[in-house]
Parts: sequence; C-alpha cells; structure tokens
Amino acid sequence: MRKIYLEDTPLQDAQREFLEKITFDRKVEWVRTTEALGRITADPVYAKVSMPNYNASAMDGVAVAAAKTYGADEQNPVRLKRGVDYEIVDTGDPIPPGFDAVIMIEHIHQVDEDTIEILEPVAPWQHIRPIGEDVVVGEMIVPAHHALRAVDLGAILAGGRVEVAVLCRPKVAIIPTGTELIEPRDAVGRGEIVEFNGTVFASYLKEWGAEPIYLGIVKDEYDTIKDKVLEATRLADIVILNAGSSAGTEDYTVHVISELGRVFTHGVATRPGKPTITGVVNGKPVIGVPGYPVSAYLSLEWFARPLVHHYYGLIEPKRNLLQVKLGRRIVSDAGADDFVRMTVGCIDGAYIANPLTRAAGVTMSMVRADGLLRIPAGHMGYEQGEMVELELYRPKEQIDRTIVITGSHDLSVDVLHTLLRKTYPDRFLVSSHVGSLSGILAIQKGEAHAAGVHLFDEETGSYNIPYIEKYLKGHEVVLVQLVYREQGWIVPKGNPLGIRSAADIGKSRLTYMNRQRGAGTRILFDYLLKQEGIDRNTIYGYDREAINHLSVAAAVAGGAADVGLGIYSAAQAMDLDFIPVAEERYDLLMSKHFYYSLEGETLLQAIRSESFKKEMESLGGYSCRESGQIVYEN
Amino acid sequence: MRKIYLEDTPLQDAQREFLEKITFDRKVEWVRTTEALGRITADPVYAKVSMPNYNASAMDGVAVAAAKTYGADEQNPVRLKRGVDYEIVDTGDPIPPGFDAVIMIEHIHQVDEDTIEILEPVAPWQHIRPIGEDVVVGEMIVPAHHALRAVDLGAILAGGRVEVAVLCRPKVAIIPTGTELIEPRDAVGRGEIVEFNGTVFASYLKEWGAEPIYLGIVKDEYDTIKDKVLEATRLADIVILNAGSSAGTEDYTVHVISELGRVFTHGVATRPGKPTITGVVNGKPVIGVPGYPVSAYLSLEWFARPLVHHYYGLIEPKRNLLQVKLGRRIVSDAGADDFVRMTVGCIDGAYIANPLTRAAGVTMSMVRADGLLRIPAGHMGYEQGEMVELELYRPKEQIDRTIVITGSHDLSVDVLHTLLRKTYPDRFLVSSHVGSLSGILAIQKGEAHAAGVHLFDEETGSYNIPYIEKYLKGHEVVLVQLVYREQGWIVPKGNPLGIRSAADIGKSRLTYMNRQRGAGTRILFDYLLKQEGIDRNTIYGYDREAINHLSVAAAVAGGAADVGLGIYSAAQAMDLDFIPVAEERYDLLMSKHFYYSLEGETLLQAIRSESFKKEMESLGGYSCRESGQIVYEN
Repeated sequence: MRKIYLEDTPLQDAQREFLEKITFDRKVEWVRTTEALGRITADPVYAKVSMPNYNASAMDGVAVAAAKTYGADEQNPVRLKRGVDYEIVDTGDPIPPGFDAVIMIEHIHQVDEDTIEILEPVAPWQHIRPIGEDVVVGEMIVPAHHALRAVDLGAILAGGRVEVAVLCRPKVAIIPTGTELIEPRDAVGRGEIVEFNGTVFASYLKEWGAEPIYLGIVKDEYDTIKDKVLEATRLADIVILNAGSSAGTEDYTVHVISELGRVFTHGVATRPGKPTITGVVNGKPVIGVPGYPVSAYLSLEWFARPLVHHYYGLIEPKRNLLQVKLGRRIVSDAGADDFVRMTVGCIDGAYIANPLTRAAGVTMSMVRADGLLRIPAGHMGYEQGEMVELELYRPKEQIDRTIVITGSHDLSVDVLHTLLRKTYPDRFLVSSHVGSLSGILAIQKGEAHAAGVHLFDEETGSYNIPYIEKYLKGHEVVLVQLVYREQGWIVPKGNPLGIRSAADIGKSRLTYMNRQRGAGTRILFDYLLKQEGIDRNTIYGYDREAINHLSVAAAVAGGAADVGLGIYSAAQAMDLDFIPVAEERYDLLMSKHFYYSLEGETLLQAIRSESFKKEMESLGGYSCRESGQIVYEN
Repeated sequence: MRKIYLEDTPLQDAQREFLEKITFDRKVEWVRTTEALGRITADPVYAKVSMPNYNASAMDGVAVAAAKTYGADEQNPVRLKRGVDYEIVDTGDPIPPGFDAVIMIEHIHQVDEDTIEILEPVAPWQHIRPIGEDVVVGEMIVPAHHALRAVDLGAILAGGRVEVAVLCRPKVAIIPTGTELIEPRDAVGRGEIVEFNGTVFASYLKEWGAEPIYLGIVKDEYDTIKDKVLEATRLADIVILNAGSSAGTEDYTVHVISELGRVFTHGVATRPGKPTITGVVNGKPVIGVPGYPVSAYLSLEWFARPLVHHYYGLIEPKRNLLQVKLGRRIVSDAGADDFVRMTVGCIDGAYIANPLTRAAGVTMSMVRADGLLRIPAGHMGYEQGEMVELELYRPKEQIDRTIVITGSHDLSVDVLHTLLRKTYPDRFLVSSHVGSLSGILAIQKGEAHAAGVHLFDEETGSYNIPYIEKYLKGHEVVLVQLVYREQGWIVPKGNPLGIRSAADIGKSRLTYMNRQRGAGTRILFDYLLKQEGIDRNTIYGYDREAINHLSVAAAVAGGAADVGLGIYSAAQAMDLDFIPVAEERYDLLMSKHFYYSLEGETLLQAIRSESFKKEMESLGGYSCRESGQIVYEN
C-alpha cells in the first residue's frame, strides 16, 4: 500500500467541508403524539380542532344572558328562572344556546329550587372560555424541524392531532475494528482489550437523537473491513469506523474509503483527534475515528454530532462556559488546536482549573473532566494564574458545591465520597491523587479544599506537622486525623522472594515499583533505604512511578514488579501478600476557610460518623481510633 | 362536605416541608452497562480489572530491553537479533517477557529479515502503556448516586464491569380526573375536553428519570377517586392527581387525601398554581395539581421534580438565566409569587422580553414561552424598560438567531417560518399576533424585527405608508411587499342570511365577530361601516375581539357569530363561505438595521423564493405578484 501522510486540515474547515458535501435523504414517520417526546417534527403541526371546541364555562355557576342582568343592584335584585333565564353549569360545561355569561356559584342567591336572585349586572362573555382560547383550528402549534417538548405534546393533543409526522431517526452504523478487541466481559486476558468505544459512541448518538446500529468487532483485515463498510452503507445513514484511521501500515480505513468512495479529509489539526477521516461511500457519510478513546470521543463530537443535527435541520446546543484561573502552566504545540481536559474547583470563591493527563488512552480523564479547554492553533499555551474559558462538562451549580480533595490517595477518601453522595445529595466530592507533598502545595496555592497527607519526618519522627510548618507559613490551616493505616511490602502470594525489609530489596536484583515524587509512601521507602544504608541507585525500578497503591499492587500482580510499598487493602484487592512495615497517620489538611464552611462541616460530620468508622475498619489495615480529631491548627 | 379554604403557604416552605416528610424506599436493579445510559448508580462502581490489563505496546514497532540500546548513536549503531534482542509488536500487543521498551517502526533500520539497527538509545518504558494506565483495578470509576454518561459507560466496561447496580426508576402514577375529559382523539364534541395533561406529565417525568404510570381518566366522584388513589399507592412511589385540587364543591382531592392519609399543604402562594395539594397516603407522597394546564405544569415542576431528584439523591439542574429588558409594564398581585411566561427577542443587540397571556388555561403560552419571569411575593411588578432576570426555556443561542415578527396575523408568516426552518436550520422565527397598529408600535419601540401590516388609510386610499409616516418619524425602516390577499365576509355554508355588504350586517340583528383594536381588518370594517353610514353601536358583537382570522372563522363555524370579516383561507379552513370585499396589501415592515442584517437577508431570500410563491398561491385568496419588492424606504 502506498505510503500516505496525515494532513493538518484546520478543524473548522474539515467540519464545514464535510457538512457541505453531505445531503441526507430524510424519511418521515407518523408516531402517536403521546409517544413523541424528543422527536423532531417533519412539518409544522397545525391544529385540527380548537381548544376549547365550544364556548365553555370557566367556573362552577349559572349561565345567563348578560342583557337580563343589566340594572341589577342590592335594591333592585333581578330574579331569574331556571330553564328560562339561567342554567346550572360546571367548569368546562358548554354554554347553553341563548346565554352569554356565567355567574359564579358564590355570587348568586338561591330563592327557591328554580329561582335565583342577582345583585349586580354581568358583562357579556364573563367567565366564559371562548372557542379557541387556547388553540385555534388551523393555528400553527409548532414549526417544522422542532424538537418536541412535553408542553408541545399537550398543545398538539389539544389541537386534535393524535399522531404527528416526525423525521425518522438517522441510523448510524458503528464498526469497531481491531484484532486485539473482545466484546465487553469481566475477565480479560493478556493481549485482549475490551471494546468499549462502541458503547460510548452508541450512547452519545442516542443522546443526539440518532439510532445506533452496533455491527460488532471486525478484525484488522482490509477485505473484511471493506465488506463491513459496504454492508453499513446499506443499513445506515451514517457510518462510523473506529481505529485504523491513522497512516500506519495496518491502518486500512483511508484506503477502504478511497476504494469504495471518496475521502474528504484525512488528518485534522487537533490534539488529540488528529487521525480523523471524513468521506463518503454510496452517498453515505463515513467517519474514521481514531482508536484511542479520548481522541475517538472528541472526533465523534466534532464530526458525527453536527451531522446528526444537520440531518434534523437543527443547530447543536452549546455547552455552558466558565471563566477559570489556571492552577498551573499549560504548554501547547502551536500547530494544532489543543484540547485539554480540565478539573475545576471553586476554592474560596475562585474557580481554579487544572489539566488532567493529556494521554489519549485515558478514558478516566474524560470521566473526571469538569470541562474542556481549547488552546487554538498558533497559541503556545497559558501561564499559571491566567484566566481562560472552559466548556463545562458538569453543571456549574455542581462545581459550586464540590469539595476538592487532593494529595495522597487512600481508600478512606472513596469511602467519604460514597457517604457524602448517599447522605448529602447537594454536596459533591472530587479527588485527585498527586501525592502528599503536592497536596500540601495545592493547599498553599489555593487549588484544593483539603489534601490527604501522610508525610513522615525523619528528624522529629512525626507525621505531617513539620511539613505544614515548613511549607504553609502564613496559611491558616487545620489538620484533621482521618485514619491510621498499615504500610507494608506488597509481594506475590506466598512471598516467593522472602522479602522482609528494604535490605532484602537492596540485596537481590529485584524489580521494585516506586511511587511518584512527593508521595508519602516514596518518602517512607527512602527513609527505610537510608536506615539500612542502601543506595537508591541500586534499586531497579526506583524510577518507575505508580500513581497510587492499587497501581503498585497491580504491577506486582501483573508481574511487572516483584515488590512495592503500599497499604494492606491494595494488596488484598489483588489477592497479594502483605508484609507490614509501619503504621502511619493519614490526615486531612484543610484550609481554615474550608474547615469553617458549610461544606467543611458536612465533611467533618461524615468523618466523625459511625458509618465511616465501620466501613473503614471492615477493609482491614485501618484504625479509626482518632478519626475526626483536630491534630493541628494554626 | 365541610367548607374549606385555600392556604397561602409560601412556595419554598411548601416544597421544603414536603421533601422533609417523605422518605423513599429505594430499590436497586442490575442492568447491562451497555444499556445504562442516564441511569443513576446505586453504589460506587469500582474497577474489577485494569485497563490495560498487561503492559501493552502503544505503537507499531519492536519491543526491546532498553539496557541493550544504551550507547547507540549514528557512529555506533546497535544491532539487535529478532527472538533474542527484539520482538515485533503492534499497538495493543503485550510486551514479551524480558523487554521493557518499544521502538517505533519508523525509527528502526532493517538490516535483514531478523536483524535491525538502532541509532539512539531508548529509555525504559518508552511507548509502553503500563498496566492500569487508564483504569486500575479497585479504583472508583464513578461514585454512588451518579447519573451515568456515555464516557462513564466506557470506563466502567474498561474496568471489567458488564453490569452495574442502579436505582430503580421511581414509579409515578398519574390520575386525571374530570367528567368532561375524553382520551386524546381528533374529533371532539361539545362539552368534551381532550385529556392532554397526562401526556405532558408523563413526558416531564420521563425527562426527569421517573417511570410514569398513566391510570386513565377518572370521573369526578369521591369514591371512584378514592379507590384509584389507593390503587395508585400500591403501584407507584409517587401519586399525581390532576384537577379537583381547589376548594370548590366538586373538588374532592383534598378530602380524599385527608381521609386516606395526611394533607401537608393545601394552597401555595403562587399565581398560577395556587390550588396545589401535597400529602401522603400509605407512605407514598401524593400531589394534587390544579386542572388548568399552565398551573398544572408549574405545580408539577415545583413538587414532583424535586421529589424525583430527592429519590435519586441528586440535585435538580437549573435552567440558564438571562438578563432582559421589559418591553412593557407588568403588574403583580403582591400576595403571591407571580410567574409570567415571557417571549424574548434579541433586537439590535438588546434582549427585549414581553409577557404572554397570564391565563392559566392557555397551553400555547407555554409552547411559545422563551422564559419564565418570577415576580416575588411582596413585589408589585416592574416598569417598562426595567431589567429583570428570566429562567430560559430555550437555549440562548437560539434566541440570538431568532427573527421576531409581530403585527397582523397572516398565513404567509407561517409559510415563511416553515421555509426558514427547512432551509436555514440556524435561523429561527417567532411570531405573535397583536394587530397591524401594535406591530408598527413594536417596531417603534424596538420590540420586533419585522411586523406584518395591512392598514388602510381612508384619506389617501392607500395602505400602510401613511401610518408609517405618522408613527415612525425618525425611525429608519423598510417596507417590503409580502402578499396581496382578499378580505371578505366569512359566513356559514350557503350564506343563509344572504350577507353581501356591511349594510346587511347593520340591518338585521346579526351577531358579528370583530377583531381586536388596531387590527387592520377592524379598521377595514370600520371603513366599510362608515361608507354605508352605519353606527357601530348598532352592531351586536362589535366589542367581541378575536385575535386572528381563524378565531373569527371558528366563531362563525361554532355558531357563536353569524359573520366576521377575514381572509379566504380562514373561511376555507373551516369549510365556510367567503364573500369577497376587497384585495388588500399585506406588507412586512422592518427596521433598516434588521433589513441589512444577515437574518434580514435570509428572510428576504425566503420571501423572494419560488417555493414561497408556490405555497402561498396554492392556498387561494393570495397573490404574490410583487412579493419581496421594496414598497417604501426612508
């Protein structure tokens, strides 16, 4: 196959060209109005009957001829006879012929069974809902290409339309390709990757009003992909091919589309999302989206979402925007529109945003993102403290009520999170794991409400406080005891290498899995090495940085490491052995402003609750004997 | 039944009391992750496997041991043997044991089939996706009580969870009551009202994540309603009773709830929506919502929506807000929170809002509303020109692109609307019918982009221009010919009363249906009366004001009037006879600013299109011989 290179087509150009070249053959179907919520009208809906369809009483009372009441007053009451001068009507009843007003039941004086007295005159059409007050026959209730809302359905039924002509949902074929892919399951072997992009695509497409057709995993073989694309163009209005959209030797998508139809764009100037293809086969638009999930989702949003809206003749709803202050510097490659997933917290009244990983393979960064920052092509990035605008993924009112916890990772934070969600629906929590020292710095820089810390100080033999006094001079903080927990060596079942101490690790050439710089567990490891007089440069794997206890345990479980330092529950979760080394204090450091806020109070309530203690101690390796106590306050 | 009165409980108090007194028995079900979009997690979801589950190649290339590449450069290339020093790997392949880095295919030099040369060293773990890079086993993917989004489903599948525990949707029973109600149909008799609130309720509830159970229409009988409420509390988590919630003699709801359970609130200090009831029966919350649709929808949103969110442990999403300038004065009863449906247009860069009818029976006012204005209790209202804040019902970007047409009603405006929606998806149109003269005043006050006008001037015998010169001094406007149309007498089939002229109407005591003040058709009628020398006070029905041609025709068709003046198509729509009186010019008056805007250009294109002419002339009674021509420009 001829060597090809990716283009650098600006995103907007690629989008415009794609939309301009696609014309849809829209089909119309009639659906019951009662079932039409969210559907898009094919034509305007005109009322077939009026609502009300007759002059109706708007009150419980009597229908009269207004003219007969003229001149009535307290001195000269007018007497009316039932069947001649008045009729009894309830709300919604038709006004009998010859009558043109209604008097409320409260305003009449019953003389006898069939006679009433009126003490004041009434105006014609008083308390009558005239024909068509709500909907008039022939009136346009909703226009063409209108997304039907709950209230529209009421008015359409009121207008006598029990069925409504709507555009058929565009069918979108989803073809995941990749020899390593397996359909979702809960046991995954070596060399197998669960195919989950298809579910994400289908879910997005449903939200946008399309009907996804999942065609199943296709192997990385040119002819198989080609046949599947042909089948898809017969079944669907739009075709999505996942992976193989780049320019490598096993990237067949662009060749298949070229052979069967026409390629418009191959490569957009974005990061992530660059290896995106747009084209057409048998008159049907085809999108080749990149394999890495984050690239794929963004690419789908850039190219499939406008297409679905174009089909319906609708414009895409925009996400809300928020002005935020950058917690750190973000650099960007000037050649492309750079899209960075961001977290946002409202700290002491300021919206502080920080970038998540930019790795296109990290789905969790989309799950955790509060918003998306676009750095336009030609821009080198932003400095720390700069104000930028984000597209929000979560409602602002949720962000306003979110407790931001960073620092070291511990399961107690997840347990607190769950307690909060179940007990305080209007409080949210987001946590990120940057290590204890970075947690202290985040409090210093006002990037988080609280930070989990477990920093051992060699000189004093104590935890956390010496670090706070060193790094947080002039900052008002409170340190709250969260849990005591055991640290130990995480080793394969049966401890085959017989590891008991740091000396054992230094002796033999084992592969160690370390933690990132600033992590309390790394500092503890350094201290243990020092105690034994071992040079860290002799530890193979010292430079490999796992971001949390579970990653360390996973490395050991997967054979990528022989040993790591971590907590009991991480070892237990992966069915590994645990050799205890030390009990340490894991505290929650908070800004005083947060501690005394309503959110802070809620968090403290949760920490001091019986549910928290019970849940933590059931995990093993934890003690809550001082949970919620104030350890330090300045 | 004992006489009772409605309370005036402040809305927020009633809402808070209701929520505080209700505890739900939440049920949990397991659903396939692939089908879980929009569902609410019952518990946090923790990863069961890591993604990737092995160290995986992130590139197409060769796996090597990094240590063997140290020292390589252009002068000292390192040769590697396949099977010993390297293995070929594709993206996603597991890294074979003994290797710890990947070199991209582009960076190797193939010496022979099984030998490659490396020109620079590589770092350990280069181009390897380590185990758990995306999701680590044991990691919390999403918290409890979280609404699952597309990206969440991907991460949950990546974490090896093919099923997820979600909260069962709360079941909400809907009981419409009313002896006059009929299930939706397209032929409605005298005294029958289509039951459409149930569909609107069900649709709202679906949007909020509940499962509506429509129990069918129940007659206004105490025991029948009581039995249905008991049945509903067995079937559902929440019960909605529609109508009968006030304090009249046939309002049974409050008595039924009192007998079966407990009433918390009967009557909230709001307008509309006052006759709302909250209570509990058999531990299930019961809401009695008012019968009038607008009251009902607002009441449902105030009481059922928080309840559904409370069930899920979620907070309610807020609508976007917009600062707008009031186009006219709005007065309010100080005793209640007043909720006014509003239209909003962006006219020359300013957001101008005007109130729609406040009648609680007009569903169409909810369909037409762009937003809702709350006038708090204790506030008497707002002056014209005051800035107020609206809750938006439509996205702001739609309002920004909406052409606001007011003035006289003509079908040509509906036809233009349809043309625009089908051809220019990013342009919207809203039209209101206030009559020609009010249309001119709307242009004067900057409340609309364009106004349909057909004002006959007696003195000059011409249309529109004399009025523009009188009312729009100093305003830059353009008058565009839209259509010529025939006005005539709309009379029952066969013209039983033999009406030919205004004289015929004046002679006999017929019932006339007039149009509102300022309507061009009313001015034409006045002119015809004057020509024949008839005193308007002798015309029975002169004071009855229909708001458009179709309402006039509907009145004649329904027998509420013997004759009215209007256009041919209105007569035809209701199968009535039409006696032509005059051909008149129906023009579109535009501000010059709008005429020269992109939106104005789009509108002109539509007016001048062949489709418009074809569509209009097919209606009968219209001529488009000069459509789109400029009649006047100052």
